[in-house]
Amino acid sequence: MSNQKTRNALSLQMMEDLISNITFNQDDPALRCIVLYGEGKVFSAGHNLKELTSKEGIEHHNQVFSTCSRLMLGIMQCPVPVIAVVQGLAAAAGCQLVATCDIAICTENSSFSTPGANFGIFCSTPGIAVCRAVPRKVAAQMLFTGLPLTAQEALQAGLVSKVVSQEELDEEVKKVVDAIIHKSRSVVELGKKFLYEQLEMDIKTAYRHGQEIMVKNLTMTDCQEGIRSFIEKRKPIWTHGFEKCH
Amino acid sequence: MSNQKTRNALSLQMMEDLISNITFNQDDPALRCIVLYGEGKVFSAGHNLKELTSKEGIEHHNQVFSTCSRLMLGIMQCPVPVIAVVQGLAAAAGCQLVATCDIAICTENSSFSTPGANFGIFCSTPGIAVCRAVPRKVAAQMLFTGLPLTAQEALQAGLVSKVVSQEELDEEVKKVVDAIIHKSRSVVELGKKFLYEQLEMDIKTAYRHGQEIMVKNLTMTDCQEGIRSFIEKRKPIWTHGFEKCH
Amino acid sequence: MSNQKTRNALSLQMMEDLISNITFNQDDPALRCIVLYGEGKVFSAGHNLKELTSKEGIEHHNQVFSTCSRLMLGIMQCPVPVIAVVQGLAAAAGCQLVATCDIAICTENSSFSTPGANFGIFCSTPGIAVCRAVPRKVAAQMLFTGLPLTAQEALQAGLVSKVVSQEELDEEVKKVVDAIIHKSRSVVELGKKFLYEQLEMDIKTAYRHGQEIMVKNLTMTDCQEGIRSFIEKRKPIWTHGFEKCH
Repeated sequence: MSNQKTRNALSLQMMEDLISNITFNQDDPALRCIVLYGEGKVFSAGHNLKELTSKEGIEHHNQVFSTCSRLMLGIMQCPVPVIAVVQGLAAAAGCQLVATCDIAICTENSSFSTPGANFGIFCSTPGIAVCRAVPRKVAAQMLFTGLPLTAQEALQAGLVSKVVSQEELDEEVKKVVDAIIHKSRSVVELGKKFLYEQLEMDIKTAYRHGQEIMVKNLTMTDCQEGIRSFIEKRKPIWTHGFEKCH
Repeated sequence: MSNQKTRNALSLQMMEDLISNITFNQDDPALRCIVLYGEGKVFSAGHNLKELTSKEGIEHHNQVFSTCSRLMLGIMQCPVPVIAVVQGLAAAAGCQLVATCDIAICTENSSFSTPGANFGIFCSTPGIAVCRAVPRKVAAQMLFTGLPLTAQEALQAGLVSKVVSQEELDEEVKKVVDAIIHKSRSVVELGKKFLYEQLEMDIKTAYRHGQEIMVKNLTMTDCQEGIRSFIEKRKPIWTHGFEKCH
Repeated sequence: MSNQKTRNALSLQMMEDLISNITFNQDDPALRCIVLYGEGKVFSAGHNLKELTSKEGIEHHNQVFSTCSRLMLGIMQCPVPVIAVVQGLAAAAGCQLVATCDIAICTENSSFSTPGANFGIFCSTPGIAVCRAVPRKVAAQMLFTGLPLTAQEALQAGLVSKVVSQEELDEEVKKVVDAIIHKSRSVVELGKKFLYEQLEMDIKTAYRHGQEIMVKNLTMTDCQEGIRSFIEKRKPIWTHGFEKCH
């Protein structure tokens, strides 16, 4: 996101652009993960309040929030991991975006808030993502007070995966990206899809489906290559595809 | 709660008093949040064991626990945020009360436990609230051992929102209360209701309902005033009501 | 687990042995809790990859994962608490085992990872347990990168209940075991069963069932003995059985 003038506001245009960027080449085998940056001191300040005035009308409001849901669910459905890199403030729907990404890395000076109620619009949809990322009381305190979490508090709550200094940021992002691209794309895709599916299941159902997924995973060429490479103590050579070996 | 003799035990009478206090004026626009203190060194020691002897009989026991559930669900359904301020021990149903409140602030010397099994009564209903507030293993350790969490451990687990020294307590409570009362009551009410509803939904259903809630929020007079005040860089003037602006 | 040669791999044999050990005497009143150790520097390295080659065939793979699910659900259904004591690496299904146990204590040098995707097999079933134990982003980072958590990170995330030095380990395990065996076995059994049941319920249903469980708990002889002992300020004398006092 590179619209510092609006503090990377999630305008309708910005959200459509993000959806396009996330989906347009998502079946390209060369795409292995997506890293989402916000240029400047604000990762994203959330929705553009100017799009939410009564002048814009209910139809427009509906479009803003349905687009926002499409973006968030699109990140979860994206076949490759999506990483948020935060260097500053992530507020309201900007905080929702961080909570929704698979992985989030931030710098020490970052902060996270859901202050919508200060402007008369409770962060109800950001809360959906934030409540599923952090303990309930942390989410409630954020939503009812609008007060920010520091980077360390966000780490403690599980909203971000890692806090680093500005100097260490590139190295940390590289470490995570490298770890992902050394794996088979198709194996990661299979795993990510099941990860979010099983979260909504009771545990017995999750294990019943999980067994099937593991057995299916074992039929993939890339899996058998991975196991062989481990036994033979060499690096695996992936196809990144869904070919079956039997 | 101000019955130091019983260590603020959640007797049937105490629970009925709390329910009355929480509900009697909850539609009064002047009520903006509720702060729950426990006088003395014990926030609350939980149920009154004397009410749980076999002499009292099953009907009485049923009444104790149905009243307790009404109290806990009543806090969640209360239109304004409920803040627990803990200065000492919160045990068993007293710990459940802390876990159920929207926000919890405690002093450094506070501790939190679910020791019921020590006296032959497993903290099954406290566990309902505690399990939904902290990681599963923290809850299980508390329930199976009865050993207490320190204030810092409770913060780390997400059972409380903030730990402060006794001297800082009033200031911290004031900060949180001030943050809440500067918002529109009706906006906070709408947000709190949806917050607990969406927690029980799968994420797609949550987003579908969330969109509707956001659009409804935007039709409220207080919301449009909030957005205008933000754009005009001035303080909003709330009605605290549910009037619609179109 | 005492097969250092395979790094305590959860081979089919090892899983069957664990199931036998957990179930064979689980109705013996003298069994009060189960402590699961891994001999050597590795708690458990997870499934035995040699059992997952295509040579072994789909039927064998199915058996491996259905046995694994039986083991994990068996720990949750076991009438006494199961404690994992980790002194080193817990990886993949080994990490799932830690996440599934009721309580987990580890030494400072322990680490926890789900690196399956490195070998072409995404840790989908370990993820079921890990996602239910730690914040979603911690789980996602572990699953997508394969990078380990340190003992402190595991504590912060809630994957283990306590981190101690090697020297303090025996004392900490003893403290937790002592806390459990001073309670009534039947009360702990009733509580554990409900603990995992209510986690899958919406909160209103959980409270409705919770009331019934509390009232049932109060009819148990051991419960009334516990309450009497508390009022009379003496140690309780448990039967550890399910006799009713009225």
